[in-house]
Amino acid sequence: MTRSQLDSVSELLQNSPLDLGGDVEKMRRVFDEMLGSAPLPDDVRTRTTELGTVPAVEVRVGATASAGTVLYFHGGAYALGSAAASVGLVSEIARRTAVTILSVDYRLAPEHPFPAAVDDALAAYRALLDRGVPADSIAVIGESAGGGLALALLLAIREAGLPQPSSATVLSPWADLTQSGSTMDTRADADPVLTRRALRTRAADYLAGADPHSPPASPLHADLCGLPPLLIQAGGREILLDDALRLAARAAHADVPVTLRTFPGAPHVFQGFAPVVDEAAQALDQVAAFIDSHVRPEGRR
Amino acid sequence: MTRSQLDSVSELLQNSPLDLGGDVEKMRRVFDEMLGSAPLPDDVRTRTTELGTVPAVEVRVGATASAGTVLYFHGGAYALGSAAASVGLVSEIARRTAVTILSVDYRLAPEHPFPAAVDDALAAYRALLDRGVPADSIAVIGESAGGGLALALLLAIREAGLPQPSSATVLSPWADLTQSGSTMDTRADADPVLTRRALRTRAADYLAGADPHSPPASPLHADLCGLPPLLIQAGGREILLDDALRLAARAAHADVPVTLRTFPGAPHVFQGFAPVVDEAAQALDQVAAFIDSHVRPEGRR
Repeated sequence: MTRSQLDSVSELLQNSPLDLGGDVEKMRRVFDEMLGSAPLPDDVRTRTTELGTVPAVEVRVGATASAGTVLYFHGGAYALGSAAASVGLVSEIARRTAVTILSVDYRLAPEHPFPAAVDDALAAYRALLDRGVPADSIAVIGESAGGGLALALLLAIREAGLPQPSSATVLSPWADLTQSGSTMDTRADADPVLTRRALRTRAADYLAGADPHSPPASPLHADLCGLPPLLIQAGGREILLDDALRLAARAAHADVPVTLRTFPGAPHVFQGFAPVVDEAAQALDQVAAFIDSHVRPEGRR
Repeated sequence: MTRSQLDSVSELLQNSPLDLGGDVEKMRRVFDEMLGSAPLPDDVRTRTTELGTVPAVEVRVGATASAGTVLYFHGGAYALGSAAASVGLVSEIARRTAVTILSVDYRLAPEHPFPAAVDDALAAYRALLDRGVPADSIAVIGESAGGGLALALLLAIREAGLPQPSSATVLSPWADLTQSGSTMDTRADADPVLTRRALRTRAADYLAGADPHSPPASPLHADLCGLPPLLIQAGGREILLDDALRLAARAAHADVPVTLRTFPGAPHVFQGFAPVVDEAAQALDQVAAFIDSHVRPEGRR
């Protein structure tokens, strides 16, 4: 029964008008329409805000006092997506935990290539620290390219000598812009969303000539020592599965506390279907429990 | 603070008289004394029993009705250990879930080399099925060599065309008797319990000339398709860390639902220290939650 939910979602995605490697302007509209098509439940409250100079959308659900702050990085291969369009998935996470989530509108390629997104992520994190939010009350989440960006942020935090957040969660992370994972081939036919060609196109837009092995571009190739506890989730029906698996191993070798969970049959960022797919809801339950177990609630809020 | 708990435990293990590769008779006594030294809490009830022809120890805690059955495979490099000596750790699991745990006294090497242990594991599982216990109300757990044995059991179940149990949990599994994991070297100095030499000695005892690449001897090298949901835990201070990491990746590639969690600073089978080490208690909480989320309680019990 749950297997057929995932089958249905995969079919839906397979037949969607989204071509991740297609024309940027057109695909930005398609992407935002796809993500924004479902109405938000009444108890979701959003407001636009700024973290330093970086725009963001604040998302809360219900009236609970905030137990911490999450910086959220949306997906879209560094070229598509927006904080506004991420609110559906973000609110499903916020619903499961008492944190306030700030979805970051980092700059996108090709207009703003690497490392603009990383610079924005670090600026947003610094802005939180500057307003007195303790690092251990912050968690970081990213999906797809936003997962790679979340990891790049952790590396930048380490480089800058700033305190790490309490945890980081990456959903179907794109952590290797060299596309060297074995599932690039073994899941090519199964993946209803991603293709190697599309990722190559978007990686070229983002890198604009930079080395795809550069750690902040491809955190999979970085020294991961000193990173905070990491939750990694990935589907079995995605060419990025091996990014997640290699990331888990590499982080564990670097003494990072790692939790990995894989969902056979699930497509890329299936967590977005939490309202209608059991595995997606279970995945987000795990995300919420993971955040809650690491974040230290701020007494003063 | 919790880090120093793990440091203390590692120091304790480093200074213990156990030499895993030492004289079998002597080390069996040392091993059983180490594991059996702590008194059991009053609410732990054990009784010896048989699963077909295979001896076992049944462990329950408290008066709760059983919500399922766990087959448990103790560690000891296939040469040491016993169901009786495993009761301390087993009871800490039983305390966290309403299942009945049967710790299996599979035959040990060198007296009974491979595949005697696998034969006993399969016979014990068959005996449960034969007495009408539904497969989906059974879970399997193994630690260290018992983790490898639990995986070998799943392969044997698949070969025999029997239904798989609801889940399998392996703690610090020894899944590769060829000792090819990278942490055999990178964690050699850090590991207070295991050495490559000791594992080589015990592997030779167990294999008695059989190929260490044989799937039931080294499930890491097996095709893992069709295995049930798998929870893998490992410490960062053990040379078997890479067995766990490679197992997670290989199982995920084979479409097995995988949950992996690593505990930096933790030694081999640190879960045995649940009463005094926070990470060990957390690890067993996860084991219990994992079992409970997959086992289907038997209505008639």
